[in-house]
Amino acid sequence: MNKRLTSEEKTAILATERERLARYKAMGLKLDMSRGKPCSEQLDLSMGLFDQITSNTEIKGVQDYRNYGITDGIPELKRIFQELINVDENELIVAGNSSLNLMYDTLQRAMQFGVCGGEPFNKQGKIKWLCPVPGYDRHFSVTEVFGIEMINVPINPEGVDMDEVERLVKDDDTIKGMWCVPKYSNPQGIVYSENTVKRLAALKPKAKDFRIYWDDAYMVHTLTDEGDTLTDILAEAKKLGNEDIVYMFGSTSKITFAGAGVAFIAGSAKNISEIKARMFIQTIGPNKINQLAHALFLKDTKNIAALMRAHKDILKPKFDAVIEILEEELSGLASWINPRGGYFISCELPSGTAAKTVALAKDAGVIFTPAGSTYPYKKDPSDSNLRIAPTLPPIDELKTAMRVFCAAAKIAYLEKELT
Amino acid sequence: MNKRLTSEEKTAILATERERLARYKAMGLKLDMSRGKPCSEQLDLSMGLFDQITSNTEIKGVQDYRNYGITDGIPELKRIFQELINVDENELIVAGNSSLNLMYDTLQRAMQFGVCGGEPFNKQGKIKWLCPVPGYDRHFSVTEVFGIEMINVPINPEGVDMDEVERLVKDDDTIKGMWCVPKYSNPQGIVYSENTVKRLAALKPKAKDFRIYWDDAYMVHTLTDEGDTLTDILAEAKKLGNEDIVYMFGSTSKITFAGAGVAFIAGSAKNISEIKARMFIQTIGPNKINQLAHALFLKDTKNIAALMRAHKDILKPKFDAVIEILEEELSGLASWINPRGGYFISCELPSGTAAKTVALAKDAGVIFTPAGSTYPYKKDPSDSNLRIAPTLPPIDELKTAMRVFCAAAKIAYLEKELT
Repeated sequence: MNKRLTSEEKTAILATERERLARYKAMGLKLDMSRGKPCSEQLDLSMGLFDQITSNTEIKGVQDYRNYGITDGIPELKRIFQELINVDENELIVAGNSSLNLMYDTLQRAMQFGVCGGEPFNKQGKIKWLCPVPGYDRHFSVTEVFGIEMINVPINPEGVDMDEVERLVKDDDTIKGMWCVPKYSNPQGIVYSENTVKRLAALKPKAKDFRIYWDDAYMVHTLTDEGDTLTDILAEAKKLGNEDIVYMFGSTSKITFAGAGVAFIAGSAKNISEIKARMFIQTIGPNKINQLAHALFLKDTKNIAALMRAHKDILKPKFDAVIEILEEELSGLASWINPRGGYFISCELPSGTAAKTVALAKDAGVIFTPAGSTYPYKKDPSDSNLRIAPTLPPIDELKTAMRVFCAAAKIAYLEKELT
Repeated sequence: MNKRLTSEEKTAILATERERLARYKAMGLKLDMSRGKPCSEQLDLSMGLFDQITSNTEIKGVQDYRNYGITDGIPELKRIFQELINVDENELIVAGNSSLNLMYDTLQRAMQFGVCGGEPFNKQGKIKWLCPVPGYDRHFSVTEVFGIEMINVPINPEGVDMDEVERLVKDDDTIKGMWCVPKYSNPQGIVYSENTVKRLAALKPKAKDFRIYWDDAYMVHTLTDEGDTLTDILAEAKKLGNEDIVYMFGSTSKITFAGAGVAFIAGSAKNISEIKARMFIQTIGPNKINQLAHALFLKDTKNIAALMRAHKDILKPKFDAVIEILEEELSGLASWINPRGGYFISCELPSGTAAKTVALAKDAGVIFTPAGSTYPYKKDPSDSNLRIAPTLPPIDELKTAMRVFCAAAKIAYLEKELT
């Protein structure tokens, strides 16, 4: 839709779109596009995991995995992740099913106990955190509950505005960390460039207890045949003797099962050994049987790549359908990036229309992620960014939901223009 | 062994026991009696759990449990625990595989955020905790890492010295909580009496944010046919409008698998709703597939009781063997309680001989739980209490280990007497 229309033309389109939205509303839709959940067909890909261990399986490894012990995960599974993310055995902990849980706990430990000998964050007064925006709402919720002041840093096609990051951390030792989703970023699908990763690996913040929380949530979640390569931040940091700068996180939530996967934290031997010692007090260790089932099912990185191609075959048509409808309906009005991986499409609507768009869609029976969710404190300064999650719904529902989205976006824009 | 022997008699026995221990040492034993782990035969009892879910299982319930969602556990499993511990749906969270993790996280939340609107413990200056002794080392490690001052309270045959507990909490609002293992206590196997539980349920500490951490680790872990009934602390507290006083914890670590079970926290609706809201920020939720497998395998409380009888049939001969050897060798020298359930036998040696006993046994190739472990800060004021864990070793090894234990205990005592 072209923005350079006469008022009359706009009024006419508004009437048409309102009529169209009313027709959708009359259909009694109940669609939920709000979360980046895998769909049933994707979950079906890993059902074989449930056959790996039966009552006839002899559970053996370095010990009986049915029993207590092993804080950092079983070696059979660690080996697979070691290869996947290029770390050594002592640079990795494989834990339970939630990488969010690992990030939260890691920050909580820093709050309570400090980082590598530093004062507990709780005792350092007001502290701050860098938040590339738009970003992942659940990251922001974690820093928010700890009362950490969040500073927006713009994301750009290279990943994140590194001039701004370097400028901010250079002199301010109250800035203690930074969220990053470096590959197929949530929500825009941007892959951090080699230059960006190298500058992050070389970061020398004034605060010695500053850490990059590197949430590699979509490390193998490509939507193309060729995939993308993310520069290895830990390897780059090691070259500079700066390897304590980063904690890396990831999980199989969108490789095997979102409700029953395995998650990891990785980093320098020093960082990991500190975390392991604290985890030993916190827990008896992870569910090792689920870890063993994952090791047997995932086998190796080559097999993981094959599994991810099967995910791609399911997801690509859904992403294509969303992009096609956006291009058909919102070209000239909104902008978006066609992602090469990840779970989202980020749509930039005209300023001041995102919340209204979501409200109109909701009224017509389609739930989108609330406006503002992609920003700290749920405050999108320009009320323009919306996150579209195409993965969960069947493709027909997805198309219907996107038609509702486009009608709502146009109405929100036109109502604003015409009043 | 009688303590009223002449020096000559003692010297003779010492020589004999040293010779005996040397013979054991020459056998090159490598036995570990240190932890309360279930043995292989016990773990075999639950292998059927691994057949509950296969690639042919249609995973359905209130939602697709393979996907994200449900912070407090799936209803199928919650119903079983609700019946087992007599709580409502909104008084229970079923989580991952470690109740220790739930206890740690609950205390960490209190440190960081406070309890039901109270100031964060972190901001209240020095705080204290009541620790019935002897007790569970991993409880004490948790309170220790948070820098909480631990106060020993004597355990007695009724459970715990309630006069002392009531006296301490009445006027001191820096005392914020208390560890309890109310049934078959670790390590003595004591069951808190009805009177003790009722007094705890009625406790009115000066600190409004005081909580009893009720670790019902051995709720169904009986070694007798008739079992024991623990008075329901939450029900008693409700009668008095005092239901926020207690958090209850438990797990299936010693019902199904120590490395792959499910754990819960229960309490008043108010307590649980506060915890659930905070957990929602912390994690994407528990492994629901393992929860479903547990629900299908455990079925109901009657079936759990049958499973626990099978555990008892494996464990009872081991406990009997330990008691028999203790009676044969250490009567008159040491004391112990023959437990009706739980995982341990607590042995009270002559003062100042426990550490030496463990060292001598270790030198002969048998590892026992370190002396002092059953006390806060690993400091047993009389260096007399040792925890014997009979469950893991095969019975022949157990008998050998106990012979070594008895020889070591006698040597430690006699060496002390004779120098």
